[in-house]
Amino acid sequence: MVKVFALSLNFNSLWYSLMKKIESIKEFGGWLNRYEHQSESCHCMMTFSVYLPPQAETENVPAVYWLSGLTCTDDNVRTKAGAQRYAAELGLALIMPDTSPRGDDVADDTERYDLGKGAGFYVNATQSPWSDHYHMYDYITQELPELVESEFPVVKGIRSITGHSMGGHGALICALKNSGMYRSVSAFAPICNPMHCGWGQGCFSNYLGSDTDSWKLYDATELVKAGAKPIPMLIDHGTGDEFLAEQLFPQHLQKACDEASFPISIRMQEDYDHSYHFIATFIGEHLQFHSAHLKE
Amino acid sequence: MVKVFALSLNFNSLWYSLMKKIESIKEFGGWLNRYEHQSESCHCMMTFSVYLPPQAETENVPAVYWLSGLTCTDDNVRTKAGAQRYAAELGLALIMPDTSPRGDDVADDTERYDLGKGAGFYVNATQSPWSDHYHMYDYITQELPELVESEFPVVKGIRSITGHSMGGHGALICALKNSGMYRSVSAFAPICNPMHCGWGQGCFSNYLGSDTDSWKLYDATELVKAGAKPIPMLIDHGTGDEFLAEQLFPQHLQKACDEASFPISIRMQEDYDHSYHFIATFIGEHLQFHSAHLKE
Repeated sequence: MVKVFALSLNFNSLWYSLMKKIESIKEFGGWLNRYEHQSESCHCMMTFSVYLPPQAETENVPAVYWLSGLTCTDDNVRTKAGAQRYAAELGLALIMPDTSPRGDDVADDTERYDLGKGAGFYVNATQSPWSDHYHMYDYITQELPELVESEFPVVKGIRSITGHSMGGHGALICALKNSGMYRSVSAFAPICNPMHCGWGQGCFSNYLGSDTDSWKLYDATELVKAGAKPIPMLIDHGTGDEFLAEQLFPQHLQKACDEASFPISIRMQEDYDHSYHFIATFIGEHLQFHSAHLKE
Repeated sequence: MVKVFALSLNFNSLWYSLMKKIESIKEFGGWLNRYEHQSESCHCMMTFSVYLPPQAETENVPAVYWLSGLTCTDDNVRTKAGAQRYAAELGLALIMPDTSPRGDDVADDTERYDLGKGAGFYVNATQSPWSDHYHMYDYITQELPELVESEFPVVKGIRSITGHSMGGHGALICALKNSGMYRSVSAFAPICNPMHCGWGQGCFSNYLGSDTDSWKLYDATELVKAGAKPIPMLIDHGTGDEFLAEQLFPQHLQKACDEASFPISIRMQEDYDHSYHFIATFIGEHLQFHSAHLKE
């Protein structure tokens, strides 16, 4: 038993040593770093960014994971959201993964922005050709936290998660499917009931196949209906969001939560759209919400 | 005399009526709007963005002009700098013009990122083919303020100006050449002595010709040497800026200011680079600096 444990440690050390820092930028007194590593879950090189606030030089800090939306990489949020200012003020690390596997070997649909690369939907695909690499759910909930908590000055086992649009939904399902893994969850303009909208149906039918029972395991509204345990949850939608009526369906999630006595705060922000200008406006409140729960 | 005045008013009304709002995004309780208009100075359609803070709904607010750097449009700063949060807190309008004339008729050097479109350098070009459209100096110091103060709820005649790199230098020369036009000026990683570096020499020789006396009229260090009147001035450079040693030369401007007893604050920020992550870190301090002078 001791021997197996030692082997496992060696394996991990080897694995993590393959992680390579590819960029380092000073910001708000801390460091915005970017890494690439060979992902065990996705069987390809993956890129992610980490913002370490100034406090991380002298202590371990709690981490907030950010899941981005369709077409994004790890770069969008770190460039456009203005989150690092608040992370520096609050003493939070930001973990910003990519939205899908990448590389020449990875299946894609180059005709569509909402399927394939940039559109992993944070599920484990079961259908060919997607199942070779599209295991974003395992990547986000298992591999990445293990890597981050092994390699960076973050508090182990204490995490929160948030995201935007497809990534807002990703944050919701990661939290709803893993009671106790996150202290809090929030989302900006999340797809709330993907089984019910084009974006979700397009991805789920390709990644998971035609059996819609398998879709329910990755649908936030269905997970609440199925009895997911409550977790502090904050959601913002903009009333001027061009995707609100056809893709997002917050009213479905609200109804499921009401029927399950699941506490939830969905705020409808007047006139705001789906862009990073909307996110920038409210990211401070979201990070304060997470900080309060992370430091309880 | 009265008749001429009336004609002029009518002309202006007609002119401004050609300005068209092409985008409107709610952010931090205010509105980020984008316009296009036929520019009298540049003889082409020009695009600019304006952020109006919430306070502008009930009162005229002072305006800060932002001049962007090489390769940028009006979009970079509004997306990446995080300035709108501070503008909303301080009650400032942000005026964000493009960096050069645009359009199929406009001369360009498609082989170079540092000449032609995206690289107007905020001068009035005198040499063919640039002189047909490249009149960014007149556009920034005359046409745009006149348009802005005629069309938006900003305080007339009260302005400050700032910018980045080429645009940081642009801000410096607009302020140094026009005593009394701006209350304060600041700059992020400005080119401080363009006659002395490749970026400046490449643009000046093309736009202004071989007579280097004409270059001195658009060089911040030379303008201080020539007796420009003091104005509150704040400059930040990053010690990790990859362009610092070869292109920016803050020590030249510092020396000229010291010899002219021209008060200046050049801060060397440890490890920061030339990117918008550097700008985002310090834009709040710059806008507070301008706000204090605008509200004196």
